[in-house]
Amino acid sequence: MNRRLCLARRPAGKLTTTDLVLIDEPVPVPGPGEVLVRNTWLSIDPSIRIRLAETTPDGYLPPLRPGDALSGLALGVVAETRNPDYAVGDLVSHTLGYREFAVVGTGAQTLGGYGAPTRVDPGDLPPQWFLGPLGSAGLTAYVGLVEILELSAADTLWVSSAAGAVGAVAAQLAALRGVTVLGSAGSPDKVAYLRDELGIAAFDYHEPTLAESLAALAPTGIDAYFDNVGGDHLTAALDALRPQGRVALCGAVSGYDGAAPAGPPNLFTMVAKGLRMRGFRAGSFNYLEQPMRVEVGGHLAAGRLVHRESIFDGIEQAAAALVAMLAGATTGKTLCRLA
Amino acid sequence: MNRRLCLARRPAGKLTTTDLVLIDEPVPVPGPGEVLVRNTWLSIDPSIRIRLAETTPDGYLPPLRPGDALSGLALGVVAETRNPDYAVGDLVSHTLGYREFAVVGTGAQTLGGYGAPTRVDPGDLPPQWFLGPLGSAGLTAYVGLVEILELSAADTLWVSSAAGAVGAVAAQLAALRGVTVLGSAGSPDKVAYLRDELGIAAFDYHEPTLAESLAALAPTGIDAYFDNVGGDHLTAALDALRPQGRVALCGAVSGYDGAAPAGPPNLFTMVAKGLRMRGFRAGSFNYLEQPMRVEVGGHLAAGRLVHRESIFDGIEQAAAALVAMLAGATTGKTLCRLA
Repeated sequence: MNRRLCLARRPAGKLTTTDLVLIDEPVPVPGPGEVLVRNTWLSIDPSIRIRLAETTPDGYLPPLRPGDALSGLALGVVAETRNPDYAVGDLVSHTLGYREFAVVGTGAQTLGGYGAPTRVDPGDLPPQWFLGPLGSAGLTAYVGLVEILELSAADTLWVSSAAGAVGAVAAQLAALRGVTVLGSAGSPDKVAYLRDELGIAAFDYHEPTLAESLAALAPTGIDAYFDNVGGDHLTAALDALRPQGRVALCGAVSGYDGAAPAGPPNLFTMVAKGLRMRGFRAGSFNYLEQPMRVEVGGHLAAGRLVHRESIFDGIEQAAAALVAMLAGATTGKTLCRLA
Repeated sequence: MNRRLCLARRPAGKLTTTDLVLIDEPVPVPGPGEVLVRNTWLSIDPSIRIRLAETTPDGYLPPLRPGDALSGLALGVVAETRNPDYAVGDLVSHTLGYREFAVVGTGAQTLGGYGAPTRVDPGDLPPQWFLGPLGSAGLTAYVGLVEILELSAADTLWVSSAAGAVGAVAAQLAALRGVTVLGSAGSPDKVAYLRDELGIAAFDYHEPTLAESLAALAPTGIDAYFDNVGGDHLTAALDALRPQGRVALCGAVSGYDGAAPAGPPNLFTMVAKGLRMRGFRAGSFNYLEQPMRVEVGGHLAAGRLVHRESIFDGIEQAAAALVAMLAGATTGKTLCRLA
């Protein structure tokens, strides 16, 4: 049998594990051109929470209905093939996570444009890194810094959710490029992790206030903000940005798990200071995957870039992993490992 | 004596003429390097309303205090000179409007970076056009279209407040460049003006809804939005924009005259659709004034660009002009003409 994590009922407020349910189905059978993949690693990302609501934002993937399986990036091994381009035993990434087995075609399923399936050759590296710093999280960080914010070494950058999968790569990669970086996170442990292990100037967004913390660490303001949070973080960034500053909108996790906050009340300061803001999804920039892997992979191999994982074992733990990650209880890349 | 329009008390909600008061002072005396200008035309612009509040947005000019004279762009004749670069009788633009006489230095006063004083040679053209389509309003429109939105002929553009000083130039200039243009305004008269005199597809933002009006005129969405209004207009634009769409934030008059509205609740759609938003002030782009004047001036001279003015006579009417303009009761460029 194939166990898939499905939506049991739409969450009322914050997601709980009882909003999700494992449902058995027979292991699916690949059709012509398709392969059957046995998933080995599931990527646990905040954005799936968006699709658990009644409606999704304009331009986004449609909402899931109760009974639907969740989807997300995953890594797995080809168990059966009806496609001459894939052999049994091939390691591939694809977008039908949150389940033990998946039938994937060539270019059939895409999640946020990231594409599926793609053969992965990890070499000596841990394969799950291709779901994290060498995969979607790394590409998101790279695109945000290089393509959206166009950072230079003279800039001061604030990365929110800097102890998360994307934020940790963004903060470190920017620092390695010579940028002055501040990172924020939601607990003393994460702040200590950022300061002591990643070497990033960091603050806890709970106290004293975002404005005071930013003023203390960047008294003359910031030039760029990598937004993973939205809400009050984005408001504080608009206030702290210097003229001609830039914002990369990567996601807004503060609005995913419960009611979306209102937009920033100080948007007019974008006129006053000539600010730029741009939203993006990594899937629109797949052509940057190779340069990202060269740069991030080089830093990882040399030990210059620290990578932490929060690993949950077994499909039974996938719901708990997602709830914990949304609640801010995990650090670094959150993953679910299947046997 | 010199009459100046001053802040009597901070407006509670919408500005009324009793919030402002004309105060006499002796005609000021120019010091070394300065000139005395007798103002002939005052530009009545919405942005001064921002400085009548208790606080101004980060990055903006400071608030006026009760008793302070309002300031704004103006055109006048040099009446007395202590600067060899200016002769009596020279026509100059500067930033000390809302008064009959002003002493201006070289580079001393600036409003939003637009600079002061600048000699104006109107040739055969009405001099007040250099406060409107050939001045700040024209430059704002030009910068928004060319530099911020980077429009091409394949684009569909929505211009809000399209019957206003900036919007009317932006809408027409874009249409003359081959862009498909929709304009919105706040009354049936203005919509008729846009449709019948400017040849712009137009709608009244009051009805039925912004979303329905946009869907009717641009059923497949818009590529760019020139925002003069903010608030619900910006929210509707984010929903209507196609992937990779752009927003130029030029001002947010909906938030000037009373309580500022909350930011758009749908900002996340910028991530979903990869949207870009950029605030700007024309004063940062003065190097584009000459190309703007060549293009806009050519269209005006050839009768391809329609320009309407709402003229109030005498400094006694300056307060009424500002109140009327903020209330949306004027069309085109609002001006106060001094004897």
